[in-house]
Amino acid sequence: MHFTSETSSNGVLERHFVLGDISGVLWSPTIPGDAPLLLAGHAGGMHKEAPGLVASAHYNVTDHGFTVAAVDAPGHGGRPRDSRDHAAVAAIQQARAAGEPIDAIVSDYSMSVARRAVPEWRATLDALQSLPEIGTEKPVGYGGVSLGVVTGLLLAAADTRIAAMSFGPVFVNDALLAAARQVTTPVEYRIPWNDKHFDRAAGIAFFDALGSADKSLHAHSGRRYPVPDHERASSARFFTHHVGRSGI
Amino acid sequence: MHFTSETSSNGVLERHFVLGDISGVLWSPTIPGDAPLLLAGHAGGMHKEAPGLVASAHYNVTDHGFTVAAVDAPGHGGRPRDSRDHAAVAAIQQARAAGEPIDAIVSDYSMSVARRAVPEWRATLDALQSLPEIGTEKPVGYGGVSLGVVTGLLLAAADTRIAAMSFGPVFVNDALLAAARQVTTPVEYRIPWNDKHFDRAAGIAFFDALGSADKSLHAHSGRRYPVPDHERASSARFFTHHVGRSGI
Repeated sequence: MHFTSETSSNGVLERHFVLGDISGVLWSPTIPGDAPLLLAGHAGGMHKEAPGLVASAHYNVTDHGFTVAAVDAPGHGGRPRDSRDHAAVAAIQQARAAGEPIDAIVSDYSMSVARRAVPEWRATLDALQSLPEIGTEKPVGYGGVSLGVVTGLLLAAADTRIAAMSFGPVFVNDALLAAARQVTTPVEYRIPWNDKHFDRAAGIAFFDALGSADKSLHAHSGRRYPVPDHERASSARFFTHHVGRSGI
Repeated sequence: MHFTSETSSNGVLERHFVLGDISGVLWSPTIPGDAPLLLAGHAGGMHKEAPGLVASAHYNVTDHGFTVAAVDAPGHGGRPRDSRDHAAVAAIQQARAAGEPIDAIVSDYSMSVARRAVPEWRATLDALQSLPEIGTEKPVGYGGVSLGVVTGLLLAAADTRIAAMSFGPVFVNDALLAAARQVTTPVEYRIPWNDKHFDRAAGIAFFDALGSADKSLHAHSGRRYPVPDHERASSARFFTHHVGRSGI
């Protein structure tokens, strides 16, 4: 892992890094300290610096003292697409053009990308934990929406370093439900109640499937954007409770 | 309204009061200040000093600076029962003895009690607001579970002083759904995901029916008791946001 840029503004140190084929970014407090680590998984079609992800990362750094890492998923954010990526992107575009639902295509594609992303996240986490300011002692949180949720599920099932996950909405299919049943990590899951793209019943079925003994569903009126301030704050408190310095 | 007792401990001033037939209790910070008012509605079969209600009241006073009022519902807490109360209590006992579900009986009875409780709460609120430390200027919050939810719905529909409501689980029937549709007050609604007494689908239908533009559903793993600490804290923050001093 090597850092390719370092800038800071408004209390946030931003460092871009490269690890093999993986491109990532790390946000941390400009005043060094014992900041716990959160991993942020972006949505399908987005990248490590998706506006909502960056806004949440800055908030978690400045208001709650976390360090946040994001990487571009395979086939995303300028990373090369393979045949699976090209086929999926073409299928999504075709369905959109025909006015057909994209849920099933996106769900299948998300699972494909997430399977490839898991070893990359694990390698990234190894590298991040080799940094002296992060270290290997502390539990790690994971937050994500859409593709980021699928990735988080598979990652948590594969890597016990993930101690808590905060999810936003995700397209649900049987493979996702099966993955959810394998998860035992504490989860907070946020869904919009009035968003035509996300089916409520599917969202509730996903929550129900989660194998975690400690899980919370937060449904809020409105659409998926903007995320209500109180939900962003709730997610930060959830992480502080599970992976924060004080354990409170 | 006159106060019949006054004690204080651990930073909480507790005053019992009587207003006509109504028996109530008021908890407030021992250090006087501009404490916003919350009304607390107890569950069916309980009373104004139900353990969970008292614990929440103390928490909201000491940790969040609220004043909290509770009253015994008609037919509850040592108040005389009328023929409706006697009939309902007998029916519930009979169903329990026969191992039959009590949901429908409890739902009907809660609506009957709540209708009688609303004018009592309004008179209590008038009296409370005539106290100099409370006054008429500030919005008022309402929290409740079970019967307390039914009462809150009818109270908020009848009295615009109720500016925010935080609810726990409630038995749902068509009359409750109809009442929920009339409500426009912001609501936070908490349900247990693994409680044999409360049907998830009914809880979600109730959330969906709420007419409020600003509403949140919080489902937590586990049963209805104990209420998770983070949910109690969430409710306090919800009230602070809507009826708190700073409006934050």
